[in-house]
Amino acid sequence: MAVAQHREKHFNASDRVRDLVIGMADGLTVPFALAAGLTGAVAANRLIVTAGVAEIAAGAIAMGLGGYLAARGDAEHYANERQREQREVRDLAEHEEGEVVEIFERYGLTRADCQPILSAFHRDHDAWVDFMMRYELGLEQPHPGRALQSALTIGGAYVVGGLVPLLPYMLMTGVERALAVSVVATLGALAVFGALKGRYTGTGALRGALQTVVIGGLASAAAFLVARWIGA
Amino acid sequence: MAVAQHREKHFNASDRVRDLVIGMADGLTVPFALAAGLTGAVAANRLIVTAGVAEIAAGAIAMGLGGYLAARGDAEHYANERQREQREVRDLAEHEEGEVVEIFERYGLTRADCQPILSAFHRDHDAWVDFMMRYELGLEQPHPGRALQSALTIGGAYVVGGLVPLLPYMLMTGVERALAVSVVATLGALAVFGALKGRYTGTGALRGALQTVVIGGLASAAAFLVARWIGA
Repeated sequence: MAVAQHREKHFNASDRVRDLVIGMADGLTVPFALAAGLTGAVAANRLIVTAGVAEIAAGAIAMGLGGYLAARGDAEHYANERQREQREVRDLAEHEEGEVVEIFERYGLTRADCQPILSAFHRDHDAWVDFMMRYELGLEQPHPGRALQSALTIGGAYVVGGLVPLLPYMLMTGVERALAVSVVATLGALAVFGALKGRYTGTGALRGALQTVVIGGLASAAAFLVARWIGA
Repeated sequence: MAVAQHREKHFNASDRVRDLVIGMADGLTVPFALAAGLTGAVAANRLIVTAGVAEIAAGAIAMGLGGYLAARGDAEHYANERQREQREVRDLAEHEEGEVVEIFERYGLTRADCQPILSAFHRDHDAWVDFMMRYELGLEQPHPGRALQSALTIGGAYVVGGLVPLLPYMLMTGVERALAVSVVATLGALAVFGALKGRYTGTGALRGALQTVVIGGLASAAAFLVARWIGA
């Protein structure tokens, strides 16, 4: 196996792409299912557009703000834990040495094997703190400015995704015809989105497309049946 | 600082709780915002309940299935990467040694310092693979059965959260009165949920409560205004 290939396969989706996927997946699915569901129960495009746009506004804000707070929470959590580790490396060095040894004992090293590592850490406390953050706590330093970018990416993707199923109801007359166009347009968009996502994350394009189409189809079939049952 | 306290503070939310939070946060917010939004545009409880229940069905399925596929994808990704690392440790041991040294050089160790680590890894290839999975790739072994549990937890929490704002519309007559009760009940539920979440994640109860109430309030205010503007 070539090293270049090895690197490429270990490639992980960036945070930005993850945010796009989060927003787009729900944006394409939930407003679509709601519009389809309401088509089973009410007979006016205008009402479906009203409910759909209200849902898009609510969903985009809820998910965008949720993403903002999650990213800010991560950044604060990282900063707090880093301060704690700095104090511990300074004031409880012996205890922290024990934690380092504990980490490596899991992989078959003895305390004596760890001595070069401990010596290096005593020479450079910052490196020690970096190591504990990553390998004891499993925390990565978040990018600054990530929270706002995350909120806008998730919220924006939700709006774009949500407009696909709603546009037919906005532009056409007659709920049944609008539903037909909406289903075709949205399932097509879900398939393209799922294929790109599957290719990017390593699931495979075809399988990714199938997954998103099945989720969107099941969600809207359920919404359609529930709405028809209640609204009947 | 006591070691017990240190442990306690490093405590991280379990996967199960994370799933509950994901489902409940959106379940309390989006159906609430949709119902409030439609109250600004339509005058029949039945229609709001129909749209709300359709949204809950769609949202719970979309989020639950999304959680299922995400967890299954994680498990597959882990298994694939593990096989790759096993092959590499066996066939490209020299290259993998270089990767180990690279990891530790970041923390100020020399190649000679790493020799005891490399010797231990050569004695136990499984430990080496475990180490690379965790410290080169940052991957943790997912729990088996996690995907189904994750789907049910997220979907169930979404349904429970979504019924809080809708019950008043189901049980009462008159959209305005139902809206008033729905707002009080949902903001109360958001505050309790946010406080518990804040306490659990370390954000603090008060701040957690404020955050969820503000998100829910903003999302439903936006939905209300958009729906009134379109539906007018």
